[in-house]
Amino acid sequence: MSNDAYLVGLDFGTLSCRAAVVRASDGEVLATADAEYPHAVMDRKLSAGDGQELPSEFALQVAGDYLEALASAVPEAVQAAGIDAAEVIGLGIDFTASTVVAAKADGTPLNEVEGFADRPHAYVKLWKHHGAHEQAKRMVEVAERRGETWLGRYGGVISSELLVPKVLETLEEDREVYDAADVYIDAGDWTVWQLTGEKTYAAGLAGYKRLYQDGANLSEEYLAELNPDFARVFDKMEGPVIPLGAKAGELNAKGAELTGLPEGIAVAAANIDAHVNAPSAKGVEPGQLVAAMGTSTAMVLSHPELKDVPGAFGVVEGGVVDGQWGYEVGQTAVGDLFAWFVDNCVPVEYSKEAADRGVSVHEVLAEKAAKQAVGEHGLVALDWHNGNRSVLMDPNLSGLIVGLTLHTPPESIYRALIEATAFGVRRIVEAFTSNGIDVTEFIAAGGLIKNAFLMQIYADVLGMDICIATNKENGALGSAIFAATAAGHYDSVAEAAEKMGDKQTAAYTPDADASARYDLLYEQYLALHDHFGRGGSDVMHVLRKLQREARGN
Amino acid sequence: MSNDAYLVGLDFGTLSCRAAVVRASDGEVLATADAEYPHAVMDRKLSAGDGQELPSEFALQVAGDYLEALASAVPEAVQAAGIDAAEVIGLGIDFTASTVVAAKADGTPLNEVEGFADRPHAYVKLWKHHGAHEQAKRMVEVAERRGETWLGRYGGVISSELLVPKVLETLEEDREVYDAADVYIDAGDWTVWQLTGEKTYAAGLAGYKRLYQDGANLSEEYLAELNPDFARVFDKMEGPVIPLGAKAGELNAKGAELTGLPEGIAVAAANIDAHVNAPSAKGVEPGQLVAAMGTSTAMVLSHPELKDVPGAFGVVEGGVVDGQWGYEVGQTAVGDLFAWFVDNCVPVEYSKEAADRGVSVHEVLAEKAAKQAVGEHGLVALDWHNGNRSVLMDPNLSGLIVGLTLHTPPESIYRALIEATAFGVRRIVEAFTSNGIDVTEFIAAGGLIKNAFLMQIYADVLGMDICIATNKENGALGSAIFAATAAGHYDSVAEAAEKMGDKQTAAYTPDADASARYDLLYEQYLALHDHFGRGGSDVMHVLRKLQREARGN
Repeated sequence: MSNDAYLVGLDFGTLSCRAAVVRASDGEVLATADAEYPHAVMDRKLSAGDGQELPSEFALQVAGDYLEALASAVPEAVQAAGIDAAEVIGLGIDFTASTVVAAKADGTPLNEVEGFADRPHAYVKLWKHHGAHEQAKRMVEVAERRGETWLGRYGGVISSELLVPKVLETLEEDREVYDAADVYIDAGDWTVWQLTGEKTYAAGLAGYKRLYQDGANLSEEYLAELNPDFARVFDKMEGPVIPLGAKAGELNAKGAELTGLPEGIAVAAANIDAHVNAPSAKGVEPGQLVAAMGTSTAMVLSHPELKDVPGAFGVVEGGVVDGQWGYEVGQTAVGDLFAWFVDNCVPVEYSKEAADRGVSVHEVLAEKAAKQAVGEHGLVALDWHNGNRSVLMDPNLSGLIVGLTLHTPPESIYRALIEATAFGVRRIVEAFTSNGIDVTEFIAAGGLIKNAFLMQIYADVLGMDICIATNKENGALGSAIFAATAAGHYDSVAEAAEKMGDKQTAAYTPDADASARYDLLYEQYLALHDHFGRGGSDVMHVLRKLQREARGN
Repeated sequence: MSNDAYLVGLDFGTLSCRAAVVRASDGEVLATADAEYPHAVMDRKLSAGDGQELPSEFALQVAGDYLEALASAVPEAVQAAGIDAAEVIGLGIDFTASTVVAAKADGTPLNEVEGFADRPHAYVKLWKHHGAHEQAKRMVEVAERRGETWLGRYGGVISSELLVPKVLETLEEDREVYDAADVYIDAGDWTVWQLTGEKTYAAGLAGYKRLYQDGANLSEEYLAELNPDFARVFDKMEGPVIPLGAKAGELNAKGAELTGLPEGIAVAAANIDAHVNAPSAKGVEPGQLVAAMGTSTAMVLSHPELKDVPGAFGVVEGGVVDGQWGYEVGQTAVGDLFAWFVDNCVPVEYSKEAADRGVSVHEVLAEKAAKQAVGEHGLVALDWHNGNRSVLMDPNLSGLIVGLTLHTPPESIYRALIEATAFGVRRIVEAFTSNGIDVTEFIAAGGLIKNAFLMQIYADVLGMDICIATNKENGALGSAIFAATAAGHYDSVAEAAEKMGDKQTAAYTPDADASARYDLLYEQYLALHDHFGRGGSDVMHVLRKLQREARGN
């Protein structure tokens, strides 16, 4: 047995929770354990209730699953780490967001209350629940009409994935559920509440997901214009908004029983999953852009000043680390885009080659594409296959590819799609720099960093060194860093990040020739970006409209 | 043995020659036989010579192959038909064009002359040889500068596929070959020459491919401006220009030996392959648009008046039938486009389904796509994967698709590509109608007419009935119709077409609802067509340029 102190970091994903046991002194991850949510995502049927079919935009979860998962994962991780649970001094949590729990005043999830098991709106609305599209749209319209200044902090757009539209949807779709819910709270905060008995709202979740700005909630006047009965919705969200890195509370008896950890240890304010990469990859200094690159890419950047940056869809004071403004930007389809391509657009020969060689189709494509010189494929694409939620903030945009010929092989299109996502990042970086925020470093985390071909393209397109988050448990490590700060082991998240985080600096450096060639392709990307994204051509919207009409919806 | 008269029609394609034995009285095709060219297409290596590698734009053939092929196919077809060769009264030929033979004064192809077997330019330049791109471009520049009036007859653009740029390429790339060639002649005319001993130039080939207009060749002044040494190139093309349906000569001893047909029978003026569909599908009346739909689509329309029709890339008096102006229009990638898609963009599941069901991948895609309502896929494409040689006349345009999402399946893209080619035809039809030429009927021939799904889309997009050429030997039948006229069996091609040709009227009729929906999609196609094709965006040209630079050429 060592004399070291340890943290447990909990990373709650879409389908499972991962627990990591992390050494406070150096961030070493001793062990991890995963546990899946028993009900996974309910997007077709209400499998936890009466099995009723759900509308296509729905994505629900069961709050109790989160506790069940952590009760399995934490003890398993501690045991695997070979430490004494008594050496754990703090617990930190990050969570998908906004994943919204409706609860009673004592924390009981509403779906567990008699009479509500068969009511979809009584369940957790997962981040990717899109049932509140109409409400989100109305929130923008009303805010614009009223000249609400906070709207600019969200890029002028309210995503249906945020907490407020999801709650408004419940009010308007199932009033009884809304009335029966005493509390609306993000699942991260809810889980902390269950473990500590303290109902708090972490600054990041509050700022990014429930639109808490400058120390205040949305005004009752605004809310009443959305719906008169919505005016006092924040009565259901009482509780302190606490800074990231702060201690939300101490592990209570229930929490200790669930986790096997010592009662009384610090539990940190909950965090947004994509944001905890910043400290774990040492990316909390001003101007460091930290990208979580997976199915989509979420990026955060901290900066002491508040600036107007188009494409930032969340700007929150203390939203990533306390004391700085946190800028959130992102792309809606990255890994998903490449997966779509591989699933739908790659011929049998490539699948066979991959199978014969025991590699993925992605690898086959990347290998062939890597042999091409920049621009050799003659293509440029727009990466809007899932809309655009960066500079253009328009979910109805769609993907485009131009330059196709009868000689265009699959690897050319694959490469063009990768490049398109890199151009998208460059456009975001330029939105920062042209608005007074220098992007000093690009730090990549997430599943895609394993793809060296892709990472080199990003370096070449951005003309910047790319740093790589080296710890593969980047998410849970990030939560452990916040836990170490909450436990007082370090004085600040920045200090904890410096000691516990890790990254490889300049893992990829731009090739000057390639960068110069990409500058020319990027000009073309930009021209298409503006033409199709800013009204030069309305074809993407017309096609969506014709599509909806053809489908009869 | 019957007392009927018969014709042999010879259809020379890109890879093989087909001979058909056709009854003069009713156009019944008794039998056919095919023979491949031993050297096929030489587009990578000079396989007939020293095996040297060829530039990527090259596509060469061996003239002797044509005689070898016909010497095999004609006797086989006659034997299969069960007729006596003595009953054959005429022979007609159609050929890919401009497929250019360099020959000595006695007809010997230059590659057979000592010292020239290893010289690429001494070989036949197949229609799709694209080495003369620069020369074709210069021909336009000089013609524009000089205000040459004939340029309008070719849509203001000279394709590098025509005869003149190909010969100019030889002058400038291999002067010794040029000097050694006594004769330049289209392969169709050359073949007639070999069979008759008469060197003639058929009106269609002369008008469309060597730019013979209003009874004259290009002027020496113009030619000298292209290259001073080119001024007298037409000295290498002496011989009468004869009308279509005329007798070019009579089968001579050599021709009789090769074919097994009677010496002295009529051999008709040679024809362009895509054009002979017109008589065989009864499409020689004014305003009938006859489309040969295969890898690309070539269309002809005859009309008594000369009009200025953008997109017509050849307007020739007597170019399709004697006595009318023949308008030639076309699309550079149709079946090729769908084949590219199937070869490069369709996932393994679809290939498996096709294999399991014993159908083609095309059928699987068409079946799935047919279940979609018009516009349901949310896509629109530009069908310029092989450039545009209709209204825009720009070989450097490229394919585009817009509206892609993460939910776009392969069949949606397949359908969008088919629709794009249909929109392309509609744009061509509108170029005729808006310039005073009513398109009275759309007659489809070629391999694609078997695809009922595609043909219905064409009917819906065009809002017109589609007639179908019912004789599957449409090409060889067409040549037989010209042969029957040349032999004097009928007084005119129109009369022969009426007796020997065949088509199914209104095989596909437009669905009013689908047509109305397609009008909306077509608007989007047109907007993209004009934006990318008329200078609103130069992206396609820039991409080509970057591609060439990346490839180092």
